[in-house]
Amino acid sequence: MAITVVGSVAFDSIETPAGRRERCLGGAATYFSLSASFFTDVRVIAVVGEDFSPEQEAVFRARNIDTRGIEHTAGKSFFWEGSYLENLNEAKTHTTDLNVFADFEPKIPDAYRDSEFLFLANIDPVLQRRVREQMPDVRLVAGDTMNYWIKDHRDALLLVLKGLDILLINDTEAKMLAGNNNLLQAARAVLALGPETLVIKHGEYGATLFHGSAPQSKGAELRAPGLPLEVVVDPTGAGDSFAGGFFGYLASSAAADELTAAAYRRAMFYGSVMGSFACERFGTERLQSLTRKEIDDRFILFRELTHLD
Amino acid sequence: MAITVVGSVAFDSIETPAGRRERCLGGAATYFSLSASFFTDVRVIAVVGEDFSPEQEAVFRARNIDTRGIEHTAGKSFFWEGSYLENLNEAKTHTTDLNVFADFEPKIPDAYRDSEFLFLANIDPVLQRRVREQMPDVRLVAGDTMNYWIKDHRDALLLVLKGLDILLINDTEAKMLAGNNNLLQAARAVLALGPETLVIKHGEYGATLFHGSAPQSKGAELRAPGLPLEVVVDPTGAGDSFAGGFFGYLASSAAADELTAAAYRRAMFYGSVMGSFACERFGTERLQSLTRKEIDDRFILFRELTHLD
Repeated sequence: MAITVVGSVAFDSIETPAGRRERCLGGAATYFSLSASFFTDVRVIAVVGEDFSPEQEAVFRARNIDTRGIEHTAGKSFFWEGSYLENLNEAKTHTTDLNVFADFEPKIPDAYRDSEFLFLANIDPVLQRRVREQMPDVRLVAGDTMNYWIKDHRDALLLVLKGLDILLINDTEAKMLAGNNNLLQAARAVLALGPETLVIKHGEYGATLFHGSAPQSKGAELRAPGLPLEVVVDPTGAGDSFAGGFFGYLASSAAADELTAAAYRRAMFYGSVMGSFACERFGTERLQSLTRKEIDDRFILFRELTHLD
Repeated sequence: MAITVVGSVAFDSIETPAGRRERCLGGAATYFSLSASFFTDVRVIAVVGEDFSPEQEAVFRARNIDTRGIEHTAGKSFFWEGSYLENLNEAKTHTTDLNVFADFEPKIPDAYRDSEFLFLANIDPVLQRRVREQMPDVRLVAGDTMNYWIKDHRDALLLVLKGLDILLINDTEAKMLAGNNNLLQAARAVLALGPETLVIKHGEYGATLFHGSAPQSKGAELRAPGLPLEVVVDPTGAGDSFAGGFFGYLASSAAADELTAAAYRRAMFYGSVMGSFACERFGTERLQSLTRKEIDDRFILFRELTHLD
């Protein structure tokens, strides 16, 4: 089934202990799309400025991602500058220039309207909601957010959460959203805000799946591991790549027909697999060079890393 | 097979968000023994002062732990005071009084000499080495340490590491010992210091098993999850309880005959299971009330939490 994703398509300047890259292709929707494209058809809604050239467009096209929903407008593309010099698990943001995203009015191309899966990547919850309202009939809606929206745009975010089937956030965001420092209690509180399913990402330690319909005593449903990597070159986009693997697998022909509990569990592992690849090179480099065989091999490695027999 | 363990038997005053306890029974050897006692026979070597009463002794005896190697001497027992008010993952130490441990000369009771398994719990590496040298014929030796010994007693610690089959430490300790902030690279560097097997504990996120004999490309062997708990009352002793479950299972009749790779994997899960129980009450309370049935049930829960099918 096709996924429509709305979110940032951007340029990132990134510094990590492994080096520095200026204005490489980035943005939540970019990482999500590239990652999910290994599992199913992906269609992007975003806005870019005059600095977005055929070179960047080609990165999407090479993975067969539908870019008809990427609006080109006067001005500059979203720009983010950050570093991970002291802590590879958390970016220090130096610059966030919304640029063309400041006045973005998302429009859904007719060709996207039969998408059964919708992903609201991290972006202003007002924009997430506008897209959600224009696609009322999708089968499954997932979304991401970040501390900035939780802290300063809570009301808009709460409206988005009511329309989500699945929310993917990290530990800090879940605890901040719930106002509770215990992971399990925070998970329950977040599930009470709307989403039926919650994925809490733990950075290098993997991610945990929670379901709202589980009995109170059940707690966490599944813990997918992180993969200890020889070199973490650049963690930018790892969370979005996780989301792309997770939601992409759910939308794939292997899972979408039934969406069983087992499918959600495998989706968690695919999420972790894609997040691990994203960190191996700067920006989107690793996702661009990736093959389905490498994904399948790493999925087997994740199984060996977690299973007793 | 019987395990002999040397380490601290102590009194702890602990403050956590759940409350405060004064002078409850603690110490690395105490948590380790109680935890391992659910799997095999355990014999303790330690020293206590006049404040250690039959009441504390009874906690060991109730779990059939051999206390003949606990030397009673004039003075006060080891005392530790710490809090976890800001961060449940890391204790803030307020007081460490070695007291009777300052002049401890460990002696091995004859009745302990046929122990095939030896655990060197966290304590001065000079004492760990003295015990190790007095038991040259044990089949498997594991040990723990902490940042203080890594930083200020490195030479003594390095001698201990050369005599270990298995080292259990946490992320921070592994990275400090290796002088490397990448988990996988740090693991390789630590394995090069002597131990054939390394378990790196990640606090609430579980633990990872590494083997020195694995091919360079193999990386981590197994990741056992942590269990998201409804309430973390007191994390004191969770790492020692992990070690007790891990090493206790390896020494148990279910594993000790062959010590296969599969046994090490199950041992990791038993470690995580025992660590999770330790956090549920203050001090040793939860380990004292625990039953083997509860352990087996939680082992099944851990399998469900990590396995795809």
